[in-house]
Amino acid sequence: MKFVRRDIISMKDFSREEIDYILKKAEALEPFARGKRSNLLAGKILATLFYEPSTRTRLSFETAMKRLSGDVIGIVIPEASSVAKGETLADTLRVIEGYADAIVLRHSREGAARMAAEISDIPIINAGDGAGHHPTQTLLDLYTIRREGHLENLSIALIGDLKYGRTVHSLAYALSLYGAEINLVSPEQLRIPPDIKNDLKKRGANVVETTKLSDVISDIDVLYVTRIQKERFPDPSEYQKVTGTYRISTEMLQDVKDDMIIMHPLPKADEIDKDVDYTKHARYFKQAFYGVPVRMAVLYHILGDAR
Amino acid sequence: MKFVRRDIISMKDFSREEIDYILKKAEALEPFARGKRSNLLAGKILATLFYEPSTRTRLSFETAMKRLSGDVIGIVIPEASSVAKGETLADTLRVIEGYADAIVLRHSREGAARMAAEISDIPIINAGDGAGHHPTQTLLDLYTIRREGHLENLSIALIGDLKYGRTVHSLAYALSLYGAEINLVSPEQLRIPPDIKNDLKKRGANVVETTKLSDVISDIDVLYVTRIQKERFPDPSEYQKVTGTYRISTEMLQDVKDDMIIMHPLPKADEIDKDVDYTKHARYFKQAFYGVPVRMAVLYHILGDAR
Amino acid sequence: MKFVRRDIISMKDFSREEIDYILKKAEALEPFARGKRSNLLAGKILATLFYEPSTRTRLSFETAMKRLSGDVIGIVIPEASSVAKGETLADTLRVIEGYADAIVLRHSREGAARMAAEISDIPIINAGDGAGHHPTQTLLDLYTIRREGHLENLSIALIGDLKYGRTVHSLAYALSLYGAEINLVSPEQLRIPPDIKNDLKKRGANVVETTKLSDVISDIDVLYVTRIQKERFPDPSEYQKVTGTYRISTEMLQDVKDDMIIMHPLPKADEIDKDVDYTKHARYFKQAFYGVPVRMAVLYHILGDAR
Repeated sequence: MKFVRRDIISMKDFSREEIDYILKKAEALEPFARGKRSNLLAGKILATLFYEPSTRTRLSFETAMKRLSGDVIGIVIPEASSVAKGETLADTLRVIEGYADAIVLRHSREGAARMAAEISDIPIINAGDGAGHHPTQTLLDLYTIRREGHLENLSIALIGDLKYGRTVHSLAYALSLYGAEINLVSPEQLRIPPDIKNDLKKRGANVVETTKLSDVISDIDVLYVTRIQKERFPDPSEYQKVTGTYRISTEMLQDVKDDMIIMHPLPKADEIDKDVDYTKHARYFKQAFYGVPVRMAVLYHILGDAR
Repeated sequence: MKFVRRDIISMKDFSREEIDYILKKAEALEPFARGKRSNLLAGKILATLFYEPSTRTRLSFETAMKRLSGDVIGIVIPEASSVAKGETLADTLRVIEGYADAIVLRHSREGAARMAAEISDIPIINAGDGAGHHPTQTLLDLYTIRREGHLENLSIALIGDLKYGRTVHSLAYALSLYGAEINLVSPEQLRIPPDIKNDLKKRGANVVETTKLSDVISDIDVLYVTRIQKERFPDPSEYQKVTGTYRISTEMLQDVKDDMIIMHPLPKADEIDKDVDYTKHARYFKQAFYGVPVRMAVLYHILGDAR
Repeated sequence: MKFVRRDIISMKDFSREEIDYILKKAEALEPFARGKRSNLLAGKILATLFYEPSTRTRLSFETAMKRLSGDVIGIVIPEASSVAKGETLADTLRVIEGYADAIVLRHSREGAARMAAEISDIPIINAGDGAGHHPTQTLLDLYTIRREGHLENLSIALIGDLKYGRTVHSLAYALSLYGAEINLVSPEQLRIPPDIKNDLKKRGANVVETTKLSDVISDIDVLYVTRIQKERFPDPSEYQKVTGTYRISTEMLQDVKDDMIIMHPLPKADEIDKDVDYTKHARYFKQAFYGVPVRMAVLYHILGDAR
């Protein structure tokens, strides 16, 4: 498996074999994510270049690096905007590659990460580029499913905004490599785009579409919840009606499998009732933590033997 | 003495014995605060979660951690406000506890730190919660008095806004444990609340109230100055009149004890004349530095054997 | 050579001998700037106090420090403005000197760094004070010329805004110590001030002034480009006309020396055509990287044996 100095742009660049390899490494690194000392990345510097704020992602990478004794230099939003003033992303990258060993890039423009990888001599990790990809989010989703349940013979429901939701498209793609049963639960207006659905089927997923979570909830192993944004609805009253039906409450969990787990990419607003946090099914905070070992595995494979 | 994984929320949680213990440890750690190398907290990560800016407090914790080879991940204001967008403090804490070994929290809402400690699995250090507590500030005040003078048989004057001043309430409480003579010097409008005064007396302090510093200045060991905020006065002319009388000048220091020290929690505006900075009495900058060994002692006791 | 605990305020404080010493040290440290591990500054803390944003300079110092295992505490703009609220620069410095071993200061007011050095007990490195100095920028310019060409028998052209450009004044001064031929290429309105020109001559430079780059381009070893700011021209149409003539394109490079190099302090806007980035002459990104070993050398000499 060759990862050294490799860019991490999209899940579509990963084979199932490579995903399994990263997930296994993440598990080996988990004790270090919990605070066991390690010098694996001592002397290495990661630059976090965020043209959009994403505190959670930034901190997760920062912790991953620091738990392995690496260090981080960060460019946050108000500065980034001043960087941007009169300077192209290309120039910024060419300068920062002189300061660091790898760059985590968050940008509002789809395709920015791919372009950055072409320019930069040091590896680029895509931490979200607009409607584009965010591969380490998908890797941590897969890791959570593997650690808290199983990736084999998986039945999962993806619920919420399946039309625009970058996270779910990328996760569904990856799960299709494992032949999962994917239940797509969304309002009519926010159904998954047909080409993506067809692609999933072609890759081996068993795809089911429905508008009612109750149709599938008792059979699934994982319930993956995403936010429905108000701005998607021209009519506010329709938004109210729709979100009401898709809000997860403890009542809806009465007939679920005993070991069914609920995931969410966070931050969550009111799409999950507070009470649900205290059920045995909730895994979203653990999922956030799992971002640390997964990003450790990615960073280690990119930087580990790079010099 | 059991501190490991303990929350640090309010001075009222500390016995005099525990305070003495922390102050003694701070003294032992002072050489490391001045730059001597130490690996005491190598591999540990502190998260600074600041919903309000407080550069001094944040940097002091950051230096304390880094001088002991620990590391820091920080969430500063503009980001924190974006974190807050649609996410509760509870959710933010549950995520950050996956990234760090302890959290320093600054929040505008009184009681936020206590609530945070109930939610979080990792220790919370309260770095100010609105009108509430800021215990490491009080500990560094006590440390300054101990290092630059004496806590036994102490006569101190607290001057300025004694009605709303969180800092002075917390310090006065702690000093009452040492049986100090506490001279409360304030304008009528900003006198200490009666219930706090009674509590101090009950705990063993000798409390004197006056509106004139000249009544007490020649007898005190410590003059603790705090800012009087304009907003406390409906009438601006009254503010001018009051602050004029409470502004410390070199002239006012002619009859003070030779080893009397002047303290201030900083930042200061014009409540102390610039000239005073150069007298032998000024200790406020040294006081700021003492925040480092004191926070080292707190962090060491919370994190030292935590894993 | 005595550098320990020395302030770095202006190039005028350096003799040629001292400059050569720093440049030689920078070359010795370059492998560590590229990622080789070093513990030279382990345990040391640098404070970056930026009252104006300058991401590039801040990151360059941060990387220099971290590549040598030192650490950094930073005060960035939005916070700095809140620090400033009611607190003088003097007070801020007196507090920060308790948290760090040296301070990198960026300030909008000319002379701020010199004043800071008088106040602070720990060394101040001037990272730009308004129209004043930015000595580590000049040192990295000299290092780039030395590494990518030669400082002896140098013919350089400085082009752009030579009236207000802090960078070029400081560089021209330093080059005069090496007896360089300095070609000053600017529009009439932005010629170098006569007193600076006379000073350069007096110190040993061979100074030539012209308004046309074509007069000198085929004879020079280095072309140092700076930005011409729109605000300098009362009449926008005149700005357009002037900048058009001073924009570097590949066509203008047809008759240059084979090993002529192009430098720029960055960020650049459109004063250099994108195509030029891909010629063998472009060195501005490498120049940005060279800031790291040069700042390492400065930091090492200031902090190396400081305690």
